[in-house]
Amino acid sequence: MREAFYDQLDRTLGDLVSITRRVESAVSVATRALMEADLAAAESVISGDAAIDLARERVEDSCFALLSLQQPVATDLRTVVAALRMVSELERMGDLAVHVAKIARMRVPDLAVPADVRPTVEQMAAVALQMVHRVVDIIERRDVEAALDLAAADEEMDGLRRQSFRDVLDEGWAHGVEAAVDIALLGRYYERIADHAVSVANRVVFVVTGEYPTADAPA
Amino acid sequence: MREAFYDQLDRTLGDLVSITRRVESAVSVATRALMEADLAAAESVISGDAAIDLARERVEDSCFALLSLQQPVATDLRTVVAALRMVSELERMGDLAVHVAKIARMRVPDLAVPADVRPTVEQMAAVALQMVHRVVDIIERRDVEAALDLAAADEEMDGLRRQSFRDVLDEGWAHGVEAAVDIALLGRYYERIADHAVSVANRVVFVVTGEYPTADAPA
Repeated sequence: MREAFYDQLDRTLGDLVSITRRVESAVSVATRALMEADLAAAESVISGDAAIDLARERVEDSCFALLSLQQPVATDLRTVVAALRMVSELERMGDLAVHVAKIARMRVPDLAVPADVRPTVEQMAAVALQMVHRVVDIIERRDVEAALDLAAADEEMDGLRRQSFRDVLDEGWAHGVEAAVDIALLGRYYERIADHAVSVANRVVFVVTGEYPTADAPA
Repeated sequence: MREAFYDQLDRTLGDLVSITRRVESAVSVATRALMEADLAAAESVISGDAAIDLARERVEDSCFALLSLQQPVATDLRTVVAALRMVSELERMGDLAVHVAKIARMRVPDLAVPADVRPTVEQMAAVALQMVHRVVDIIERRDVEAALDLAAADEEMDGLRRQSFRDVLDEGWAHGVEAAVDIALLGRYYERIADHAVSVANRVVFVVTGEYPTADAPA
């Protein structure tokens, strides 16, 4: 019975890893769509989101099966509940990649991101993507140290977001209101992807150590 | 044993109702802060968020206690897991009210919302607030019909958000980039509050009927 539980739990955590890889790909392709006004890339992220939703449902079903058939307690219970929450957050990250892709699609054949703010947006995208990439390892290896490091990357994201506001509010901004609104929303989407990455990582820390890394648990 | 379970479950659902009321108040006060450039109102929403976070922790602890001590199955299990998810969403709604309050605070003594876009933003805020208000009833009475009605209000929100984009992208927009960015982000925050309200309501439907109202479950 216990062995069956751990086998199924391992498979579920393996599913979380593959969902995280799908999310990583979605963020990567959405960013390419954005930076290269690539309509096909944008469409593939938007239509590919259904696969992430489906994978989430499978994980939820497994977690329910674990809870009702195996009735875990203590750490095992917390791990299953953490998996349920992680999969919700991963699905949200996929949705946010879709939002990025939709902004790209709306402006094709133009670029949504004007040249002078491009370095900031590229760096936001790179930080978000790297954070998602690290989450794969963090879940796979239950790597508490790497999870704690993620907070530093999140601070870099906050700094970049402030920079993007300075860019669009600068007196020299010559790209009008529409581009400024796009940049503000893109900043919000990448920031939320980063927030969710930290939150997923914190849940791994919680499962391994029994405590959240900070006083206030992930939202 | 079973009776103890239902007593504790009822108390937990009662706690969800009171958290929803707190969220309703946060959205209401944040909107007042925004519309009247009321610094004290903004500060009260920002500092009051800790109470919502604390109430969420209490609900999470109760749910864990229910799961590990009572080991519910079938509908009871789904109800406890739904409560765990609802409380996360309610906490996020509180965070979004804080984001609204922070935009208000940043512009005091000025108003963040220029007069010509004010009706659209006021209506978005009113729709969001009404949706949160209805969630109180929906949880309290497990009111499936009212939950299904919420989708219509959410469509109104989508229409208002599109209107707000038209407002700021209009050639006659004379309030510059900063105000446009504020409006875009405010629209996003109110829209997300509405999305979460629908999602919480859908979970109530799921607990009562065993099925989500639409093919794609709430994110």
